[in-house]
Amino acid sequence: MSAEPSLPTPTSAPAPRYGVWLIGARGSVATTAIAGCAAVAAGLHPPTGMVTETPDFASCGLPPLSSLVFGGHDTVDCPLPKRAEHLAAGGVLPHGLPSAVHAELVAADQEIRPGGPLPGDTDGRTEHHDDELIDVFAADIRDFVRRRDLAGAVVVNVASTEPAPTDDSLPPSSRYAAAALRAGCPYVNFTPSAGLHHPALVPLAEASGLPYAGRDGKTGQTLLRSVLGPMFLQRALAVRAWSGTNLLGGGDGAALADPATAAAKNAGKERVLADTLGTTPEGEVHIDDVPALGDWKTAWDHIAFDGFLGARMILQTTWQGCDSALAAPLVLDLARLAARARERGLSGPLGELGFYFKDPVGDGPSSLAEQYAELRRFAGRLRDDAPEPGARR
Amino acid sequence: MSAEPSLPTPTSAPAPRYGVWLIGARGSVATTAIAGCAAVAAGLHPPTGMVTETPDFASCGLPPLSSLVFGGHDTVDCPLPKRAEHLAAGGVLPHGLPSAVHAELVAADQEIRPGGPLPGDTDGRTEHHDDELIDVFAADIRDFVRRRDLAGAVVVNVASTEPAPTDDSLPPSSRYAAAALRAGCPYVNFTPSAGLHHPALVPLAEASGLPYAGRDGKTGQTLLRSVLGPMFLQRALAVRAWSGTNLLGGGDGAALADPATAAAKNAGKERVLADTLGTTPEGEVHIDDVPALGDWKTAWDHIAFDGFLGARMILQTTWQGCDSALAAPLVLDLARLAARARERGLSGPLGELGFYFKDPVGDGPSSLAEQYAELRRFAGRLRDDAPEPGARR
Amino acid sequence: MSAEPSLPTPTSAPAPRYGVWLIGARGSVATTAIAGCAAVAAGLHPPTGMVTETPDFASCGLPPLSSLVFGGHDTVDCPLPKRAEHLAAGGVLPHGLPSAVHAELVAADQEIRPGGPLPGDTDGRTEHHDDELIDVFAADIRDFVRRRDLAGAVVVNVASTEPAPTDDSLPPSSRYAAAALRAGCPYVNFTPSAGLHHPALVPLAEASGLPYAGRDGKTGQTLLRSVLGPMFLQRALAVRAWSGTNLLGGGDGAALADPATAAAKNAGKERVLADTLGTTPEGEVHIDDVPALGDWKTAWDHIAFDGFLGARMILQTTWQGCDSALAAPLVLDLARLAARARERGLSGPLGELGFYFKDPVGDGPSSLAEQYAELRRFAGRLRDDAPEPGARR
Amino acid sequence: MSAEPSLPTPTSAPAPRYGVWLIGARGSVATTAIAGCAAVAAGLHPPTGMVTETPDFASCGLPPLSSLVFGGHDTVDCPLPKRAEHLAAGGVLPHGLPSAVHAELVAADQEIRPGGPLPGDTDGRTEHHDDELIDVFAADIRDFVRRRDLAGAVVVNVASTEPAPTDDSLPPSSRYAAAALRAGCPYVNFTPSAGLHHPALVPLAEASGLPYAGRDGKTGQTLLRSVLGPMFLQRALAVRAWSGTNLLGGGDGAALADPATAAAKNAGKERVLADTLGTTPEGEVHIDDVPALGDWKTAWDHIAFDGFLGARMILQTTWQGCDSALAAPLVLDLARLAARARERGLSGPLGELGFYFKDPVGDGPSSLAEQYAELRRFAGRLRDDAPEPGARR
Repeated sequence: MSAEPSLPTPTSAPAPRYGVWLIGARGSVATTAIAGCAAVAAGLHPPTGMVTETPDFASCGLPPLSSLVFGGHDTVDCPLPKRAEHLAAGGVLPHGLPSAVHAELVAADQEIRPGGPLPGDTDGRTEHHDDELIDVFAADIRDFVRRRDLAGAVVVNVASTEPAPTDDSLPPSSRYAAAALRAGCPYVNFTPSAGLHHPALVPLAEASGLPYAGRDGKTGQTLLRSVLGPMFLQRALAVRAWSGTNLLGGGDGAALADPATAAAKNAGKERVLADTLGTTPEGEVHIDDVPALGDWKTAWDHIAFDGFLGARMILQTTWQGCDSALAAPLVLDLARLAARARERGLSGPLGELGFYFKDPVGDGPSSLAEQYAELRRFAGRLRDDAPEPGARR
Repeated sequence: MSAEPSLPTPTSAPAPRYGVWLIGARGSVATTAIAGCAAVAAGLHPPTGMVTETPDFASCGLPPLSSLVFGGHDTVDCPLPKRAEHLAAGGVLPHGLPSAVHAELVAADQEIRPGGPLPGDTDGRTEHHDDELIDVFAADIRDFVRRRDLAGAVVVNVASTEPAPTDDSLPPSSRYAAAALRAGCPYVNFTPSAGLHHPALVPLAEASGLPYAGRDGKTGQTLLRSVLGPMFLQRALAVRAWSGTNLLGGGDGAALADPATAAAKNAGKERVLADTLGTTPEGEVHIDDVPALGDWKTAWDHIAFDGFLGARMILQTTWQGCDSALAAPLVLDLARLAARARERGLSGPLGELGFYFKDPVGDGPSSLAEQYAELRRFAGRLRDDAPEPGARR
Repeated sequence: MSAEPSLPTPTSAPAPRYGVWLIGARGSVATTAIAGCAAVAAGLHPPTGMVTETPDFASCGLPPLSSLVFGGHDTVDCPLPKRAEHLAAGGVLPHGLPSAVHAELVAADQEIRPGGPLPGDTDGRTEHHDDELIDVFAADIRDFVRRRDLAGAVVVNVASTEPAPTDDSLPPSSRYAAAALRAGCPYVNFTPSAGLHHPALVPLAEASGLPYAGRDGKTGQTLLRSVLGPMFLQRALAVRAWSGTNLLGGGDGAALADPATAAAKNAGKERVLADTLGTTPEGEVHIDDVPALGDWKTAWDHIAFDGFLGARMILQTTWQGCDSALAAPLVLDLARLAARARERGLSGPLGELGFYFKDPVGDGPSSLAEQYAELRRFAGRLRDDAPEPGARR
Repeated sequence: MSAEPSLPTPTSAPAPRYGVWLIGARGSVATTAIAGCAAVAAGLHPPTGMVTETPDFASCGLPPLSSLVFGGHDTVDCPLPKRAEHLAAGGVLPHGLPSAVHAELVAADQEIRPGGPLPGDTDGRTEHHDDELIDVFAADIRDFVRRRDLAGAVVVNVASTEPAPTDDSLPPSSRYAAAALRAGCPYVNFTPSAGLHHPALVPLAEASGLPYAGRDGKTGQTLLRSVLGPMFLQRALAVRAWSGTNLLGGGDGAALADPATAAAKNAGKERVLADTLGTTPEGEVHIDDVPALGDWKTAWDHIAFDGFLGARMILQTTWQGCDSALAAPLVLDLARLAARARERGLSGPLGELGFYFKDPVGDGPSSLAEQYAELRRFAGRLRDDAPEPGARR
């Protein structure tokens, strides 16, 4: 037996910290995610709505909430602490929370860089070509990682839905997505905007060696549809018509009241129905802007189905939820999962995260139950003792 | 015209026929099942609502619908053709169907034997001890199988729900269940009544070598709960209260308006919630007798749940269905599955049929999606080429 | 006792008969009205839904149902008995009713004359100028009155809603309305189509000396709004948003799915809200064509209102009705009331019939309760002993 | 000290002030009424929900909100400012309001005297006979009026609903009602408790020369029923079944979950239906205690009705409201109306206030629209220039 020199005891390095770079960092979802992360990390609230805090995910090496550092791009100026006060006034955040996590909001606010340009902007950035803008955005992200001494960062798009692109120019969401690739960061698209789906980016994404996920977070009506559709299918009941109306306040309602933008969103909703039912039933989906509802939304679904011998039956559902409160914990989940996936060397479309999306990348199942099973298998693959990602199917 | 040699007639033995012995054979569910089986077998209607007619079950050796022969016990006299006319007038059966399947209704009606005695009856059967009654019932079933030259029969309880038993005497449903065992028939309890669950019958059932399934068909509100409960659990949303009201017309409403009977039914509903959520939320379930609704029922559910940071949200569902049309195809499914299970030598509680029940025998999962996966695995075990039942877990 | 000579028996004149000339005489509403009138007159059904059969209207001289004779214009060929069978199959008419009132359906069918031309028609009528068409239609009506020896006729428009007119040409509904005036008949517009509201007809209507009423029968969502709107106003509750979705099967759904046609209908709905609330709340109204619903319609309304100190509250309503069964008894009511109004010498817009309409002629109240009070006062004016119409306000 | 000439005393007498003595003065309704009165009087909030602040009531001499002085009895100790904070945390009061009206809450709290005894109390008051207790309560009220130099006081019962009395003993609500009479104050019973309806008090009330009103404020489900019932009646639609479920959090839910207490409340609800429909339809009403709902309540109604020729239709309503916010402005209305009625010399049951109650005293109409018309007529009678009350019908 050799006299091996004793190895120096590792001077236990401080736990690594991970960046979460939010596109739309001053919006309702981002503000709720940042404030909520701080509140849950501090033990002020239970982690309701965070799937990654359930026992199945305890040992798969996800970065703890306390290790997350927030920054991002946005085109508006309202500071996060003020935005949080607005959300508290609207009942989205508990009263008292904005002041309890004021320091964390201020810290995140200091890491928000100007996005844009918006269509019609005439500021100095307007004349940039796409490529220059992407460079600026990527530099913002790299700078964030370096200055804050982060082990990496995940870029998550939580900006307002953009209209379906009508020409070949790169839509804003795709510029940010390209910047994520250029900065070497996993990318998650929580919106129906183009992001990495733009044809110009698809080959770049594939060649990047980075994991990415999306798109369009499944938080309300579509979440319901992804469990009710399979129920009808499994029971061999014939869905004749599935109609829906969404009433949205806040900025989302206004954005989605635009027909071109709504079209992008509805495509995801209808895909879920067609995929889970195997047919496309009659019926339309409406998205109405109802500012009086504030940050709350109501979704009514009316499902006409046939039973045995053609007996006509009806199911109606009414979902009254707070979109930001539904989305924010999923955003935290996704940032953690994507960060860990990158750490484990996974790359390409993370189809196993279809649980979170209306229109998932990759080829996963469309029923929520099967998507949940996939997600748990994915958690297993994230463990330190899991087989190498090369073994991936 | 050529002098072709006549081909030898294939000696292929006539396909075996299976009996379906219905307890409550003149009720709405039984009448709909009998009429519907004939209608679907004749190609008059698609098999909507029959899971066993979907592709996954095509090659597992289930008896074809045309091979099923119906009989049963009942305490009422109204002939099946007349009962079917009533159901058509109430919109449960399509107009014209009772006359289109008149012959099959008459044939089944001739195989219905008097059940009873009902509490308070003073006819000749009243003084019989339980054991004598069970003998009479079992003889009725055996006689049916012999006279109609059947390969076997399955006994299915679709009678009105009986009150939860308050003493040790054998409730009527358990007498019929005992008769099934004595006649060597698989038994399926589609109601919340005691059936084989009575303590006196549990050891007999286990020793019988027969397969059995139950109890309490999951056709409406509980079906919904078995997909919505898992959704909340998987999304880590905290259900605070789950309240429900059922409005039932027909005989079922009257039976269930009796508190003791409703207690039996509600136990199943609440078990589904507790099992799928992992906790028991606040909230009650009401069952109201509303004769004006005829054969239709309406179930309203109100679910108060918390999202991220305690945001309070609400889901409401309203299910308007025809109970007989929901139950009848499942009854046909279960009769076929149980008949085939018997043929394949399976015995004991068929926990894999939890998909169909509020309060399943055995130890299966409680979410509909997992129950459906179990059912498909069960279908695989029914194939001729499946491993022997001894391999059962 | 004296031997008085027997008095000659009065040669009691036969009771006068009144014509009901329906534009759209082979549609669902017309068929239901014709079949239902016969059924109620024969005592086969109670007069549910007919306000003029309630006690308040017993002594105001309305023509009895048995005195009504039906005819009309339509552009389709399907005979009324066949149309009635379709309605029975769809659950609108009771099974058995079409055969029970077959003779009356045949009789009415023989009095239906071809309408049209439809846009794009190339038959012989197409080249007619409006005036010639109006002459033909008026001659049809006069011929009906003369041949059937009627005391008069009322023209009621129950045809599919036409698109809002985009130019100066006379829309079809206005041609029929003009024909009514030319034939000397009271006119009732049960649809949102132009009818007498076309600018070219307004002076003719005023000069005609005939009574007329309309427009757009209030049968479902708007009926509800006309009682709920006043409730909020009377309680000083602040309605913030009133959103609605209508799912319609049948031809009406297809017609109203056309945005131009829907605009005509929605104008009436919104007028009711604005009139009863005193303000115009946020919110939209959608009309979806859902053929799977057949002759049934579902209307969902979502009302966000503020209570004391700004507390946010919600009322939702879901109305599931059969449009033809809701409209038909009102059509009979209106025909009788208009016939009697003519008999009593009333002329001009019958604002007192606002109870029946979304967008009433004249200057009546908009709350249903006040409209009902007006209607009862109107009934009083129809009595033989009421003051002369000259006393009218 | 200088010899300043005394300033002339302004001759204009200070405006009279009126007392509002609340039974249950520390409950949610009372706290909301007191806080809201101060907030509206100070111009912090519009008077949403207060009918007496609409133009029709502007000139009928009601005491202004700023003239109201609050006091009352209660059996609990939680000070009003703290109670208000709880209500703000539950979303009933706007955040910031409790501090904005802190002075008024403190002032009212100082005028709250101990009520009771509660059943089982063993404090010094328990041994008192009813009469002694009434004396104590009346003295509390008189003392309040004298010390605060009030022109009078109105007693309003807003305490938790008490069980329907089962014997002859005077229930607590009736003791307070008797104290109101003894103190010479008008009495308003906003709850379904007995109050002045107890047989022992009826003659005293009639002989008192005081006006009184009640009972059971109509704030949600019954409010809706009082407009929907008349709609069905006026349209001659046949209501077959009217079923309802109420989910209540807060103390009211717990109190009403007691069957005896619920019976008192449901009697009022059913009376409204029977009175407005002219018949009693099938259907039950449930009241569930759901603490998770906090101060909010949800009422679901399901109405099955027949249209023309027996067509079966359904209306469902879901009302989600905050009971305290619905009740408080009506309590302020009633206090002002009763104070003014007393001033104008009116006495006996104020049947014209049926607009506010489920089970009104006197013989008024049951439809909300007619009740509103009555209320406006009543407002006219309160004017200084109205005929003397002797002219009352």
